[in-house]
Amino acid sequence: MKIAVDGMGGDNAPFSTVKGAVDAIKELEVEIILTGDSEELEKELLKYEYDKSRIQVVHTSQKIENEDKPVKAIRAKKDSSMVVAMQLVKDKKADAVVSAGNTGALLAGGLFVIGRIRGIDRPALCVCLPTKKGFSIMLDAGANADCKPLNIRQFALMGSIYSSKVMNVEKPVVKIVNVGSEEGKGNELTKQSSELLKSEKGIIFGGNIEARDIPSGQADVIVCDGFTGNVVLKLIEGVAGFLMSNLKDVFMSSLKSKIAALLVKKDLSDMKKRLDYSEYGGAPLIGVDGALIKAHGSSDSNAFKNAIRQAAGYAKANVVGDISDSMVSLENE
Amino acid sequence: MKIAVDGMGGDNAPFSTVKGAVDAIKELEVEIILTGDSEELEKELLKYEYDKSRIQVVHTSQKIENEDKPVKAIRAKKDSSMVVAMQLVKDKKADAVVSAGNTGALLAGGLFVIGRIRGIDRPALCVCLPTKKGFSIMLDAGANADCKPLNIRQFALMGSIYSSKVMNVEKPVVKIVNVGSEEGKGNELTKQSSELLKSEKGIIFGGNIEARDIPSGQADVIVCDGFTGNVVLKLIEGVAGFLMSNLKDVFMSSLKSKIAALLVKKDLSDMKKRLDYSEYGGAPLIGVDGALIKAHGSSDSNAFKNAIRQAAGYAKANVVGDISDSMVSLENE
Repeated sequence: MKIAVDGMGGDNAPFSTVKGAVDAIKELEVEIILTGDSEELEKELLKYEYDKSRIQVVHTSQKIENEDKPVKAIRAKKDSSMVVAMQLVKDKKADAVVSAGNTGALLAGGLFVIGRIRGIDRPALCVCLPTKKGFSIMLDAGANADCKPLNIRQFALMGSIYSSKVMNVEKPVVKIVNVGSEEGKGNELTKQSSELLKSEKGIIFGGNIEARDIPSGQADVIVCDGFTGNVVLKLIEGVAGFLMSNLKDVFMSSLKSKIAALLVKKDLSDMKKRLDYSEYGGAPLIGVDGALIKAHGSSDSNAFKNAIRQAAGYAKANVVGDISDSMVSLENE
Repeated sequence: MKIAVDGMGGDNAPFSTVKGAVDAIKELEVEIILTGDSEELEKELLKYEYDKSRIQVVHTSQKIENEDKPVKAIRAKKDSSMVVAMQLVKDKKADAVVSAGNTGALLAGGLFVIGRIRGIDRPALCVCLPTKKGFSIMLDAGANADCKPLNIRQFALMGSIYSSKVMNVEKPVVKIVNVGSEEGKGNELTKQSSELLKSEKGIIFGGNIEARDIPSGQADVIVCDGFTGNVVLKLIEGVAGFLMSNLKDVFMSSLKSKIAALLVKKDLSDMKKRLDYSEYGGAPLIGVDGALIKAHGSSDSNAFKNAIRQAAGYAKANVVGDISDSMVSLENE
């Protein structure tokens, strides 16, 4: 399994990407192609002992910045670490690509460099959310701010395949984010999408899920438009951060509470880690004709290694092939 | 100040509504008109010592259930506790009305029994969210699943008036929920709404707010469509509940952690209470031509009393009159 890694993407690159890559080859059966400024990358690599035959550096002269306009950056910076890494997947020289760089550029690159799976109108960002019962996946987490019912239907199909092949859920239940649990609730998009999902044979549709119930794990696959999904994802982050900071205040408020803090410090930090979705690797852009994983922009080397692990699993499970097959069979119906 | 109280609305009525009313007249300068089954209400009232001249019971023969279809219920159950309470405001026999009953019916009643303020197309549910800096108000929290930019603009105007008159914020900053902080981000609705808000002289527009930043209190007034607002409100509830339940598990996991729990029990419960938006009374349906407050369905007597307090404050601040005036001046521009 060969993984292309955008060596320059992310807030902590190239430190995080290089260390993530070195740690990955030690834990996983993968080879890595690191793209980026070879001087910078080699300098980082020198810090570690590792099997040099398993990490290859491909020099690129450009870098896409967070401030760059996505589509323009993809078109103008053909020799950027991100575009070159994606091109490796397009040219079948790598099985998957991971980047923690500019999200918009990555989405644009998915469309323009790698391309869509035939039959998929809009690829979707798919995130993994920790829940009371384990994990749910949610798509679209932000690739498409405006969606049509047809897109939501495709998200449901792709999510079901991902859930069964990568998350090993035997019969994944799909629910749609809505403002009530009863049928007939919602906005025009959710009403029309629900009608499509009800009659879709390729999925197990469980109806609506209210945002309140997302953390309780009532669905294996949660579908919504990318605007709603992005609000959900970022609000989980915001509320969790707010509560943890309030908790910190509670623990710092008196001598008694400081003692309590010492007693549960380790358990609390474990809990925080368990609930942090960025710990669980990256988000695949499902629907693109290749395994493309978006790692969190603030990924440290450990999160980045987990994103590489996820990329390998995604490629190995052949999710792209399965989605492609299911689209062909839909076409032939 | 006379407050009409739907005595039969809510999961814990009439216990919660009657006790809430009795407690309210002891703490606030209000008189209460309780609507509902007089036998049941009088039986509850008998439990308490209070100034009988300040609580009046108006008998009604019907009750709107949570399962009732909103518009149908409002039309068919004219002698329900909810409709009669709203009619008291319409007829100027009460200054405000509070109900913890069927939300959809209350929204429909706001439109069909009380009516809209002239110039307002869609009234909005306005909730108060605890933040790092104090409170933000958010509207629409769920009255209108589909919105147009014009509605968002009206929410911004009404929210600004509410924020300055009721929350005493001198120069309330309005932000719109969006998927990025930069200009030009978002879906069609937020893009078009932002253009309207930028040129609206009646508000101070601060641009976008990402969902992640909602708890940090970066805006006094947060505007969004009712679908998004409802997702935000319910997800805050869901994530907070999930974290508190994880925290409970941490505290129950060992003898050491159980000791820690005992040391911070009181502080934690205070924190939980401080962060629970339902503690802060109800949500006014702003834009209706009268003070209409929706209390949380699960309100206990304390939450219900707080909703009565909020209704009194809302009526006293004359928010309805101010919105009405600002609509007239818009018309004359």
